Amino acid sequence: MSDSTFGRLFRITTWGESHGAGIGVVIDGCPAGVALCEEDIQKLLDLRKPGQSRYTTARNESDSAFILSGVFEGRTTGTPISVMVRNADQKSRDYSNIAESYRPGHADYTYDQKYGFRDYRGGGRSSGRETIGRVIGGAVAMKVLEKFGVSIITFTSSIGPVRISRENMDFSLINDNALRMPQADISEAEVYLKEVMANGDSAGGVIECHISGCPAGLGSPVFGKIDAQLSKAVMSIGAVKGVEIGDGFEASTHRGSENNDSFYSDGTNTLKRTNHSGGILGGMSDGDTIILRAAIKPTPSISMVQDTVNRNNENIKLQIKGRHDPCIVPRAVPVVASMCAITILDALMVNATSEIHRLIAAYQKD
Amino acid sequence: MSDSTFGRLFRITTWGESHGAGIGVVIDGCPAGVALCEEDIQKLLDLRKPGQSRYTTARNESDSAFILSGVFEGRTTGTPISVMVRNADQKSRDYSNIAESYRPGHADYTYDQKYGFRDYRGGGRSSGRETIGRVIGGAVAMKVLEKFGVSIITFTSSIGPVRISRENMDFSLINDNALRMPQADISEAEVYLKEVMANGDSAGGVIECHISGCPAGLGSPVFGKIDAQLSKAVMSIGAVKGVEIGDGFEASTHRGSENNDSFYSDGTNTLKRTNHSGGILGGMSDGDTIILRAAIKPTPSISMVQDTVNRNNENIKLQIKGRHDPCIVPRAVPVVASMCAITILDALMVNATSEIHRLIAAYQKD
Amino acid sequence: MSDSTFGRLFRITTWGESHGAGIGVVIDGCPAGVALCEEDIQKLLDLRKPGQSRYTTARNESDSAFILSGVFEGRTTGTPISVMVRNADQKSRDYSNIAESYRPGHADYTYDQKYGFRDYRGGGRSSGRETIGRVIGGAVAMKVLEKFGVSIITFTSSIGPVRISRENMDFSLINDNALRMPQADISEAEVYLKEVMANGDSAGGVIECHISGCPAGLGSPVFGKIDAQLSKAVMSIGAVKGVEIGDGFEASTHRGSENNDSFYSDGTNTLKRTNHSGGILGGMSDGDTIILRAAIKPTPSISMVQDTVNRNNENIKLQIKGRHDPCIVPRAVPVVASMCAITILDALMVNATSEIHRLIAAYQKD
Amino acid sequence: MSDSTFGRLFRITTWGESHGAGIGVVIDGCPAGVALCEEDIQKLLDLRKPGQSRYTTARNESDSAFILSGVFEGRTTGTPISVMVRNADQKSRDYSNIAESYRPGHADYTYDQKYGFRDYRGGGRSSGRETIGRVIGGAVAMKVLEKFGVSIITFTSSIGPVRISRENMDFSLINDNALRMPQADISEAEVYLKEVMANGDSAGGVIECHISGCPAGLGSPVFGKIDAQLSKAVMSIGAVKGVEIGDGFEASTHRGSENNDSFYSDGTNTLKRTNHSGGILGGMSDGDTIILRAAIKPTPSISMVQDTVNRNNENIKLQIKGRHDPCIVPRAVPVVASMCAITILDALMVNATSEIHRLIAAYQKD
Repeated sequence: MSDSTFGRLFRITTWGESHGAGIGVVIDGCPAGVALCEEDIQKLLDLRKPGQSRYTTARNESDSAFILSGVFEGRTTGTPISVMVRNADQKSRDYSNIAESYRPGHADYTYDQKYGFRDYRGGGRSSGRETIGRVIGGAVAMKVLEKFGVSIITFTSSIGPVRISRENMDFSLINDNALRMPQADISEAEVYLKEVMANGDSAGGVIECHISGCPAGLGSPVFGKIDAQLSKAVMSIGAVKGVEIGDGFEASTHRGSENNDSFYSDGTNTLKRTNHSGGILGGMSDGDTIILRAAIKPTPSISMVQDTVNRNNENIKLQIKGRHDPCIVPRAVPVVASMCAITILDALMVNATSEIHRLIAAYQKD
Repeated sequence: MSDSTFGRLFRITTWGESHGAGIGVVIDGCPAGVALCEEDIQKLLDLRKPGQSRYTTARNESDSAFILSGVFEGRTTGTPISVMVRNADQKSRDYSNIAESYRPGHADYTYDQKYGFRDYRGGGRSSGRETIGRVIGGAVAMKVLEKFGVSIITFTSSIGPVRISRENMDFSLINDNALRMPQADISEAEVYLKEVMANGDSAGGVIECHISGCPAGLGSPVFGKIDAQLSKAVMSIGAVKGVEIGDGFEASTHRGSENNDSFYSDGTNTLKRTNHSGGILGGMSDGDTIILRAAIKPTPSISMVQDTVNRNNENIKLQIKGRHDPCIVPRAVPVVASMCAITILDALMVNATSEIHRLIAAYQKD
Repeated sequence: MSDSTFGRLFRITTWGESHGAGIGVVIDGCPAGVALCEEDIQKLLDLRKPGQSRYTTARNESDSAFILSGVFEGRTTGTPISVMVRNADQKSRDYSNIAESYRPGHADYTYDQKYGFRDYRGGGRSSGRETIGRVIGGAVAMKVLEKFGVSIITFTSSIGPVRISRENMDFSLINDNALRMPQADISEAEVYLKEVMANGDSAGGVIECHISGCPAGLGSPVFGKIDAQLSKAVMSIGAVKGVEIGDGFEASTHRGSENNDSFYSDGTNTLKRTNHSGGILGGMSDGDTIILRAAIKPTPSISMVQDTVNRNNENIKLQIKGRHDPCIVPRAVPVVASMCAITILDALMVNATSEIHRLIAAYQKD
Repeated sequence: MSDSTFGRLFRITTWGESHGAGIGVVIDGCPAGVALCEEDIQKLLDLRKPGQSRYTTARNESDSAFILSGVFEGRTTGTPISVMVRNADQKSRDYSNIAESYRPGHADYTYDQKYGFRDYRGGGRSSGRETIGRVIGGAVAMKVLEKFGVSIITFTSSIGPVRISRENMDFSLINDNALRMPQADISEAEVYLKEVMANGDSAGGVIECHISGCPAGLGSPVFGKIDAQLSKAVMSIGAVKGVEIGDGFEASTHRGSENNDSFYSDGTNTLKRTNHSGGILGGMSDGDTIILRAAIKPTPSISMVQDTVNRNNENIKLQIKGRHDPCIVPRAVPVVASMCAITILDALMVNATSEIHRLIAAYQKD
């Protein structure tokens, strides 16, 4: 049950519900001496905030991050960094139909089964606002990762059935459009979304993450495989229903001769001619770009009337009111990026112990 | 680096390389009083052993399990259960070309990068033999799970591009055919495999797992989501490149109105009309069957000549000799089942602490 | 480094420095449905606050606890409980001599060696204020423990060389005197303390903790011994230099025939005639009162001039200014109680999985 | 319950009972490239084996260690090192009185309360033989530690009430006498022990451990204090009832001016004039020798008739037969050393991540 902590050496602990005093995170294990200020965090946080476009909820939340500890004279001290975002004043609202009924596709039923009791206001701890803590943690992780030359690019690779065009991918365009697609023309996805919204329905999509600059050797050969760690990290995000690395499910349809990436030497480095492996071999990073995709289900909150039951196990009709995200994918992009950043930094810190291997190796020569 | 342990309350630690004295596992946290003997383990282990069909390696390994501790008078004592499988006497073989070169798709390169050194005989710790410890742990977990009415059915749902027919699925047929497919006619997959083998190539596939009988409430709302735990468990298996729950990647192309599972009451229980969620809502089991799929890449060991480099970073041609699995999918079926069993039992034990919730609830009424 | 989290199923993560925005804790894994309000926490917190007597620092800190999450309609929800205490406005002070020099007996030197950098204001994270998060966690744990009939009594058993009189122990008097001694007459200790204070010196002491009402079987036989867990918990408190269980170090001077506690039956229960074991046998609670003692070193901050070095490794004279606790023992009493409460509740929750043993046992009879 | 694993990055998992097939350990996270053979382990293991003197049990167990995995061409590979000691063939013996009754001072009662069932032969998992796995892990840890200049000296500092003479301490004599005392004349302790043995009684004692060569900065400021970690490690050994660091309980009777260790500079290094702190300040190693003492209770197995109850809760008389250690202290010396070695190596490996601090610091200068 005490599962609000993620990571081993670089570690985040998140807290807070949709309608309490606020949402926060404690980041433990961050190296000392890293320059850090609230703007570093706010920049990434703004990419997940609501109200950015017609495709996401119109709620207006400023979501300002305050650093409460762990930073002194503009630099991290190596002690826990506590960061909080206050919840905006909540209008007094009538939650009685949500309190007493189980919304399809939501965690209302499983919460009640597990705890016998739940904070039903705005989804409580299962609200999308829970991801604020993850994004704050991710922003801090990225500040450290950039010191090591690791960079993370994350984008929408499909909205519903509409996929991006791989030929025209341009990562510089990702934040220029509301859907976070790496291309200039997003009209096909927009047409699809408008039609979905006109019906009071919702859409899902796929998010893709490219992590470059990792040294070879992150992760370990058995249960600590870096792909296994990334999968847990990303699958722990609310709406994610699938994760794949490199060619993923498609690799299962290929032959070994197609899927194997040949190694070659350019005279200096050992490189791969292709990257079907997605930068990971035997659970360890191979030095190439790590590629991961996450499937996002359509938002369960829709305006249409739905069949369901109430807490007394009576069959009822339910219509969910209020403002919801017709498509959460664009706002989930920084969340996927953050969980990857946290996982990679943690692996990098665990791997720092490999210095010991090298030390030992040096001794052995004597 | 110390990542050879998996699980929290029910926990396995595996050890052993392909060519050492043996392979083993220490199972810690198993409840006391469970009837357990070597035959219970051997039955599952035999499903992963080589030499079962023309589609898997012809190596002859008996893989007999010996229980070394933790069982007294035929029952588990609650203390660690140590189980070992001795490696058959290894023929003295010439490994020099593997020792000095990096096989494409294998962990040779990443191992050397991480440790500066590796046991190159038969893949060492990255050998498929590493999964023996997982299957032993899974067999023990299944013995406990059956006491709680949880059962796990696992099967091949595709070989290369050939998928099973969903209409004719019959789980009673899974172990009647060499490919572990839940149907009588597997000829289409066999034709594909024979053609692949004739070319000295290899094939992948997809494995599907159905876990039924779980109470609602396994897992927890944030980082301990049961789908996140299962993803890590399954993605930590050597050849797995993707994991999905319920409708998985397909769900990302659907609308909310299609993907939401309506709840209904049959007068007694709260049930779902469909199971697109794959038995998990908000990271907690919803009482329905948990459905998971794992993508298996084609075996990297193929007979064709491949381009690669050696340890001196020189471009070379490599032909891998010896007997290999043209398709590892059928032998990986019990491995996927085992990792799911271990994860679910662990979650069930963590959830036992929910008894405390109920106790508290009872007190509150006073 | 990420060591600001303690516990397995009931878990606290603390954050905050002496001179930042505040001090806080995230309590994760608390059972749902427990009545909890800020007064429950404040009561214990007030026992550790400064300014309670002439023997502790005269600083005036109100230390008011605010619950930021995890409580809904007056009851815990099973999600993380975030609690914060704001630091009072800090007078602008001159820390230059502390910033540049290493106080004997303090962590200044080791901090600089580990992190190369430290928040020197008021001891930063090594300040006694760090224990605020522990006491908040302890207060919540005690609220849950009382539902299970577990109670914890903690008191001062010696101040410097002055020990309490075992014959006249009366636990009802503990909070009636400034030294938290379980007796009416504390004059001998007061005489000692006054003399120490007159010299600008400081004193240590011993704290004793009695935990009653635990079921037999908490803890486990090897590395999870309940005495080992308690030792870690208590030794992690700043000034503690020793921990013992039952007769502790004295037991090492006794013979087996003296130290063994005879079991006897009163017709209904299995009981022990003596409790030299301190309620723990083979690492598991034996149903008797658990008895633990912690040695507290004298406060390192003294008014006398001391020899030390500065950051440039130059020999200097240092006189520490400001208000300090001549004896921290009375204020450490609730801290020791809190760490024991957290450890015992965590063990109780892990032990809830023993329900599974009983379930299995029931099945075996079939 | 799954508490048979100890350590974070350097980690041991022990298994085995007194009367099963054997006793073993899986050592995970050992750096790659360390020269290791069975003799390295056997040397330390021989110091704990029975039958070494008249003061310990006369049982004859050869306790030979076999390395089953993780070593290739004489060097560790970075993968789990599995080591096993076979139990000697057990004479068929009558355990009926132990099976049905609760020996005072033993874990029989608490085991039955926790698991409802126990392997009663020779104490099962609570047997002293459980420490074999710890000593094997310790021997491997020491091999790595010596590469870093860390050395561990452990000895008996008292037997019952007889203390060693601090003036005449000579560490070179420790293994020259049966009691592992650092002095030439052990006659006073021998006189005491002979008298105890003549009465069929048993004795306890204190073990002291000096760890030198540690860099400053091992451990961390809050729950990961190196003294807290060492306490848990040592208190988890069967007969230990107390642990102290530096001046320990005696420090609680001293004044700050006596207990503070002054820093001074010798021109090059920052040093301490005294070592009351036992090499630890604020939970982090200060570069000085770490000093720890563990109180060992008298062996609970004595030949005298004792009052107790049986499993039916009936009052009975019990006389324990068989060969037992009248004083376990000398054989526990390598066990204490081993737990300290494992803890320190683990902390050293976690601390290797501090390399990252230095890297960051270097970047900041830009």
